[in-house]
Amino acid sequence: MKYGMIATWRMAYEGIIDTIPKLKDGLSCGEALVESIKKTEDYPFFKSVGFGGLPNEEGIVELDAAFMNGDNFDIGAIAGSRNVKNPIEVAENLSHERFNIFLVGEGITKYATKNNFEIKNMLSDRAKRMWEIRLEDIKNKGLTPYDGHDTIGMVVLDTKGSMAVGTSSSGLFMKKEGRIGDSPLSGSGFYCDSEIGGAAATGLGEDLMKGCLSYEIVRLMKEGLHPQEAANKALYDFDEKLKKLRGKSGAMSLVCMNNQGEWGIATNVEFSFVVGTDTEEVEIYVANPGPNKTTLVEVASQEWLDAYEKRIKKPLD
Amino acid sequence: MKYGMIATWRMAYEGIIDTIPKLKDGLSCGEALVESIKKTEDYPFFKSVGFGGLPNEEGIVELDAAFMNGDNFDIGAIAGSRNVKNPIEVAENLSHERFNIFLVGEGITKYATKNNFEIKNMLSDRAKRMWEIRLEDIKNKGLTPYDGHDTIGMVVLDTKGSMAVGTSSSGLFMKKEGRIGDSPLSGSGFYCDSEIGGAAATGLGEDLMKGCLSYEIVRLMKEGLHPQEAANKALYDFDEKLKKLRGKSGAMSLVCMNNQGEWGIATNVEFSFVVGTDTEEVEIYVANPGPNKTTLVEVASQEWLDAYEKRIKKPLD
Repeated sequence: MKYGMIATWRMAYEGIIDTIPKLKDGLSCGEALVESIKKTEDYPFFKSVGFGGLPNEEGIVELDAAFMNGDNFDIGAIAGSRNVKNPIEVAENLSHERFNIFLVGEGITKYATKNNFEIKNMLSDRAKRMWEIRLEDIKNKGLTPYDGHDTIGMVVLDTKGSMAVGTSSSGLFMKKEGRIGDSPLSGSGFYCDSEIGGAAATGLGEDLMKGCLSYEIVRLMKEGLHPQEAANKALYDFDEKLKKLRGKSGAMSLVCMNNQGEWGIATNVEFSFVVGTDTEEVEIYVANPGPNKTTLVEVASQEWLDAYEKRIKKPLD
Repeated sequence: MKYGMIATWRMAYEGIIDTIPKLKDGLSCGEALVESIKKTEDYPFFKSVGFGGLPNEEGIVELDAAFMNGDNFDIGAIAGSRNVKNPIEVAENLSHERFNIFLVGEGITKYATKNNFEIKNMLSDRAKRMWEIRLEDIKNKGLTPYDGHDTIGMVVLDTKGSMAVGTSSSGLFMKKEGRIGDSPLSGSGFYCDSEIGGAAATGLGEDLMKGCLSYEIVRLMKEGLHPQEAANKALYDFDEKLKKLRGKSGAMSLVCMNNQGEWGIATNVEFSFVVGTDTEEVEIYVANPGPNKTTLVEVASQEWLDAYEKRIKKPLD
C-alpha cells in the first residue's frame, strides 16, 4: 500500500515523523496533514508559522493557511488571521462549506469563535523581541525590513489513494498590516488532484502568485512528467521568465508528490525539506538549484542540523 | 494598429464605449482598464461592483479587486475592502510595489488613506433596502441567502501590444463577514501575459478557485489555441470535472483576448459580455453554453437590453 508525506523546510520533521506511522495504519491524508502541521504551528521556535511566527510592522502576528482535498477539490483558506491558535484546523473546517470558504481578517475570528476553535494571542515573547530588534536595526542600519517567509506547505498521500495539501504561514516579517501572500491562494500556494498529485510552495508570495506554479506542477504531472521533472520545468522556466521580465525573481521553492508516492522539489535558493513514504524513511534533505534547470538534493548533515538548532534557539540581546 | 477591450457582463458597456476611442488614440492598457472599470464601480444601479454593490450578511459592503500588468507581471489586489471608493485604482496602485501587493481588511483602509485615495461608505440606499428585503425573505420564505456574484473582469490590449487585466466585485450577496472570492486571486480570477493574452472570470468564486481557469486559458492560448477554443476547452472540461467529483458546479463564465485582439468566452449559464476591437464595433452580446463544449453567442436584442434596464432600476417595496 503506497503512502507518503512531503513538506517544505526542516520544521516539518517532527510532525511528519510522528504522523507517518498512523498514515501507514490507515489515517486519512486530511487528518494526517492537519495533525502534522499543527505540530509545526505549536512549536514556538519556528518563527514563520503559527505561535512564534514573526509579526507585521505593527507588531501583530497575522497568519495565512489553506487546505485542499484532492478527492473533491474542497478548499478552505484564511488570510490575515490574528488570533486563531491553529490556522490549518480552521482552513480544513472551512473546506467543508459550499460557500464562504475563504475568509480574511475579523471574519475569521467570528467563524472560529462560533465553531469552538481555540483563540489565542499568537505573539510569543521571542517573536516580540525579534520585532523590537528589527525595528532598531532598520532605524540604525537602514536594513530592508522584509525577509523570512518560510511557509510550511505539505502534500500527503494516504493508503486509500486519496491526497490532500495544506499550507500555514506568518508571511513576510515586517509586512504591512493586512498583507497576504501566496499560501492561501489556490494554484499559487497549493494545488491537489488525487487523480494526479499535489504541490505546495514557499518563498516570496508576491512573486509566487505571478506564476501559479502549484497548479502548473500538478498539470505537468498529469501530462506524464515525473514529479521531479514537473517541479524542475515549472520552477526554473518561471524563474527565467521573471528575470527576463523584471530583472530579478524572489526566493521560490516547491515540493510535490504524485499519487504513486513519487516526489519532486525545485528551488532557486538553498532550501530544506522533509519526505517519507512507504519505501523511504523520513529524512531531512537540503536542496539547491543545480545546472541546466536541475535540482541538487542531499540528506542534511549532522553539522547542518546542529547549526539549524543553534540558530532557531539563539539567545536574543 | 491592433487594440481591444473585452469584459464580463452588460455593466461593462458604458466604460468600454467611452474609453475605446482613447485606447485607439494611444492610451495605455492599464489606464484604459482603470478608467473603464471605475465607471462601472461608480454607477449605483450595478449591484455587484463598487458603490451600490450588495452587502455581506451584516449589511456591510466588502469589495474585492485586482490588477495585473501583462508586460512585467506586476499584480496588485485587495479583498474585503470596506470603504475605498474605487477598488480598481487601489489595486492598480499596489501593483507598483515589490512587497505587500495583496492587502485585506483594515490594512487596505490604511494604505488607501496614506496614499490619498477617496474613502467612502460604499452602501447605497438601494443596496441597503435590498439587503433588508432579503433578510425578510430568508426569515419568511426560507430562501437560500446566496446569489448574485457578478464580477466585472476585463482584458485590454493597447496599440503598443501591451496587455492588462483587472477585476472588481462585491462578491456573493449575503456572504459571511470577510468572505472573499476568486476575483482578487491570480490564476483564478484573472491572468495576463502580454506575450500571449489575458483572461478574467466571473461566477461562484468558491468553485472558480478550484480550477485556476484564467491561468489555464492563457496557457492554452500559448499552446496555439484560438481564444475561443481555449475558453471552451478550459471551462467545459473543468465544469465536467467538478460535476464528476462534486455532483454539481456553480456558475462560471470567462472572457479572454490574445495579443492579436482575437477573443473568446465560455460559460455554463446565460452570460452577457461586451467587446470592441480595432475591427469590431463595441457591442453587448449574450452567451449560453452550446452543444459539445461550445458556446453560443448572439448580439443582445433590444428586448433583452430593455428588460435589463428595467430590472436594475425596478422600484423596491
